[in-house]
Amino acid sequence: MAEQPVAQDQQEQSDQPGQPAVAAEAPAVDSPAPSRRSLLGWGGAGLALGAAAAGGAVAMARSGDSAEPAAESGAAVAFHGAHQAGIATPVQDRLHFAAFDVKTDDRAAFVQLLKDWTTAAARMTAGHAVGEGAYGGLPEAPPDDTGEALGLKPSRLTLTIGFGPSLFDRFGLREQRPEALLDLPKFPGDNLDKARSDGDLCIQACADDPQVAVHAIRNLARIGFGKVAVRWSQLGFGKTSSTTPEEQTPRNLMGFKDGTRNIAGTDTAELAKHVWVSASDGPEWMAGGSYLVARRIRMNIETWDRTSLQEQEDVFGRDKGEGAPVGKAKEHDEPFLKAMKPDAHVRLAHPDSNNGAKILRRGYSFTDGTDGLGRLDAGLFFLAYQRDVRKGFIPVQQSLARADALNEYIQHVGSAIFAIPPGVRDQDDWWGRTLFSGKA
Amino acid sequence: MAEQPVAQDQQEQSDQPGQPAVAAEAPAVDSPAPSRRSLLGWGGAGLALGAAAAGGAVAMARSGDSAEPAAESGAAVAFHGAHQAGIATPVQDRLHFAAFDVKTDDRAAFVQLLKDWTTAAARMTAGHAVGEGAYGGLPEAPPDDTGEALGLKPSRLTLTIGFGPSLFDRFGLREQRPEALLDLPKFPGDNLDKARSDGDLCIQACADDPQVAVHAIRNLARIGFGKVAVRWSQLGFGKTSSTTPEEQTPRNLMGFKDGTRNIAGTDTAELAKHVWVSASDGPEWMAGGSYLVARRIRMNIETWDRTSLQEQEDVFGRDKGEGAPVGKAKEHDEPFLKAMKPDAHVRLAHPDSNNGAKILRRGYSFTDGTDGLGRLDAGLFFLAYQRDVRKGFIPVQQSLARADALNEYIQHVGSAIFAIPPGVRDQDDWWGRTLFSGKA
Repeated sequence: MAEQPVAQDQQEQSDQPGQPAVAAEAPAVDSPAPSRRSLLGWGGAGLALGAAAAGGAVAMARSGDSAEPAAESGAAVAFHGAHQAGIATPVQDRLHFAAFDVKTDDRAAFVQLLKDWTTAAARMTAGHAVGEGAYGGLPEAPPDDTGEALGLKPSRLTLTIGFGPSLFDRFGLREQRPEALLDLPKFPGDNLDKARSDGDLCIQACADDPQVAVHAIRNLARIGFGKVAVRWSQLGFGKTSSTTPEEQTPRNLMGFKDGTRNIAGTDTAELAKHVWVSASDGPEWMAGGSYLVARRIRMNIETWDRTSLQEQEDVFGRDKGEGAPVGKAKEHDEPFLKAMKPDAHVRLAHPDSNNGAKILRRGYSFTDGTDGLGRLDAGLFFLAYQRDVRKGFIPVQQSLARADALNEYIQHVGSAIFAIPPGVRDQDDWWGRTLFSGKA
Repeated sequence: MAEQPVAQDQQEQSDQPGQPAVAAEAPAVDSPAPSRRSLLGWGGAGLALGAAAAGGAVAMARSGDSAEPAAESGAAVAFHGAHQAGIATPVQDRLHFAAFDVKTDDRAAFVQLLKDWTTAAARMTAGHAVGEGAYGGLPEAPPDDTGEALGLKPSRLTLTIGFGPSLFDRFGLREQRPEALLDLPKFPGDNLDKARSDGDLCIQACADDPQVAVHAIRNLARIGFGKVAVRWSQLGFGKTSSTTPEEQTPRNLMGFKDGTRNIAGTDTAELAKHVWVSASDGPEWMAGGSYLVARRIRMNIETWDRTSLQEQEDVFGRDKGEGAPVGKAKEHDEPFLKAMKPDAHVRLAHPDSNNGAKILRRGYSFTDGTDGLGRLDAGLFFLAYQRDVRKGFIPVQQSLARADALNEYIQHVGSAIFAIPPGVRDQDDWWGRTLFSGKA
């Protein structure tokens, strides 16, 4: 009954920066997609099922067999690459996001944790259990894996690590802190809950099956016991942005299409310009990385729902059905900003209103029960990746916080910023190596 | 751009009690499954796509084209029938559950709300927007539908209403309160949060797409504004029980298969014996209904995860991998209770230990962030349906609360009980009619 440890993952990888490889799903009938259980004992060969995306495109899992994106697909996303997966990767359906506080001052122990996490993350991304699994190992020891993802498919799981500003107060890292990793300014209207803000570290888990995302965060937290502790976490039940222009644009909880003009995960020029940190940006260890801003945005759902359609459409600057900008017919028509009210959300958020600022959005809707006043505690968990927050989130949010008509219906209640290190290149690499080893 | 109201739904229905009809999914390519948008204007014919389940079985959506259950399927479940859907219906992947307090003393207004809710529930179940939709109607009025489910499939949505004990203190209903709808006793170890317990009413929304379930609860809450208010709500991200024996048994957050010996939704004899209230049980208005017990069960995840495999398996009385009872080889082998430790969970919960008591379980895993001490606020939102709680949940929970080895790792933190009225028979019927009209 003991699980056999498998050989190292052998997914084919794209070696082109900006082009994470996605393993194609196995044929459905004769060779079912690997499950977290069936893979055990196959050795690494089990993962070389599909060719990696070639030719510079981020492949959709199941591309070609459906007009829809790979929702709930069983495919595995490659863990290794020049950039971390979970940024340009087509947005998965569900999210579990956790921020951690570091509880140790022992740099070697922390580095070992990063290595252990990397190994576990690579295994889980590929659809394996952690270590010897949930019922391998010795009966008198706790299992290496908590077991609730046994039998589930990889579900396009991605795990993305980030380092918060406060991490750089530890471990002699002060000199390594990027200038761009600043403490975010207080924006007008912010009503931040410290218990849902900040963190020394973060891990973003995205997957099409929420049980797979929750399992991943839980097992990483378990592996980190004594060295890190979860500071806050957030479940997102539905994506509100897409990085895949071919798919239908998702709707946020205000009922509007969101992310129509998002940066596409296939647009390597836009990614290079607005998302990935270049070697010349500095610091050296961040080349190929990015910066993440996370904001928990509570929506006053009940107030919004009693607002007229006209007001709702004026607030956004798009119509509710099609998502077309004011005066235009189709969602993807170029917005004519001057046709919108001066305080329309789309107008104020547009690059033309913000010196060209563009960010890659990857937000999720959340519903966390009720607030004690009979109102749903629901809204948008906003996640945005960018090359430099000083030219990305900050100017955009300054525009919005000052004047956005939407501010009557939303409130920012949580906030965090993280430096996202570059990808894990291969089996010998590990999360954060460029920072902690001092070698790029 | 205005939506046209559609004719009344015309799904084919089973007229056999206990046999909810499930509309088969439309073929995938030439006739895509109806989306919440594309259906508008089709009239009722659009819903007569599939034949209803015939011959007494609860049909799986997509049955025949996959060895797996209809996960993430777009199919619609029939709203009308002798019993409410969402009980014997194959368990969907996601849950949004809400308990409401009544805020009006006007019986006629409350009855009108039940009628309005019924109309909206039937529409949403079939994949329609509420009323004139999210961008129909007058621009100067709030839309009839909040819009975030536009373009999404019906996703096997079911909406199930229940009436709590406190409802019967209102509206002159005192004489109608069923004897079986008692206030649950306090069980040893209960640590109930009143803010997450009880309620005059409940609505259970289950769907394969969480956005569809959240949309349904939100719109019903919106329609009830001023008459009812959400008291508490719970999102469940993954089912932990199945009523479909053919499918793989889901795992709970302890990593164990859960619900192996659950009542099957196709087993009409077991349903009649243990789930549906019969006419002779009384009161008359409950014939065809059931009783629901909801318990929010927090798991001490971090403690469990540091427990040895042997201890975990002893606690449950099953092995972790296969799910086989102690001393047996296969999950579905008949348990030999005396081979288990006296305090094993499976042994204490077994009908043979509880005078034959059986309940239909429909629980979901939840993760609601972190508890302020760095521990995940996660566990099982337990939902159990039964014909009489005095012969169902109460004796079983009395056994468990006294002695279950699992009690070291769990705590019951929320509790509620509801009388689930019979199904809405047809277009002219409405939720609660047998209670409020005095006619069966």
